Amino acid sequence: MIEKKLALTMLFDFYENLLTQKHKEVMSLYLIEDYGLVEIGEELGISRQAVYDKIKTSSKQLEDFEEKLGLVTRYRERQSRLVSVVSELERLGVEHRVTELEAIVEEIQAILSL
Amino acid sequence: MIEKKLALTMLFDFYENLLTQKHKEVMSLYLIEDYGLVEIGEELGISRQAVYDKIKTSSKQLEDFEEKLGLVTRYRERQSRLVSVVSELERLGVEHRVTELEAIVEEIQAILSL
Repeated sequence: MIEKKLALTMLFDFYENLLTQKHKEVMSLYLIEDYGLVEIGEELGISRQAVYDKIKTSSKQLEDFEEKLGLVTRYRERQSRLVSVVSELERLGVEHRVTELEAIVEEIQAILSL
Repeated sequence: MIEKKLALTMLFDFYENLLTQKHKEVMSLYLIEDYGLVEIGEELGISRQAVYDKIKTSSKQLEDFEEKLGLVTRYRERQSRLVSVVSELERLGVEHRVTELEAIVEEIQAILSL
């Protein structure tokens, strides 16, 4: 359940702007603030059942966006390959005394986080 | 007009999977195959007016996705900063005779194209 919520949080981070305002609010309280369903209902003035339905619909939509755009998958792939590049650059910087490589590593990390 | 079409092609490249199948077909013929509206209508068995409407709706949707996700803007920003990094790495590789940097440049370009 916690793993499922973590995966949803990652999807939400990438695709929240594609959800409707109301669904975004519900998912933000659910995933980021970690509110329970009853609490969310009280906060937004809707029933627990309505909250449940919106979470279900939003989750389905977020998974659907990922299936179509694959942003999370591609982000993970980039990050994992970046780790090797960074460690190789750091190694070369030390070995060949090229201190400029430190700044380049930082710039590459900054670019990848855009 | 050509500039507008180029911009749309870029958006289509990033977001085509978020369009419905029919809109995707129309836009692919319009942007990638460079068909005229009448030709697209004949190809898909719909009126010129229907083609026009679908192009208009799809264009609006593509612009809307970009406003919400900004993938094209971020891609351009990454690519433009990448150019500096690559040229700096190539310069350092030559200056300090670190031949391994060539392979690293290639890997960085591959990662950024993911």
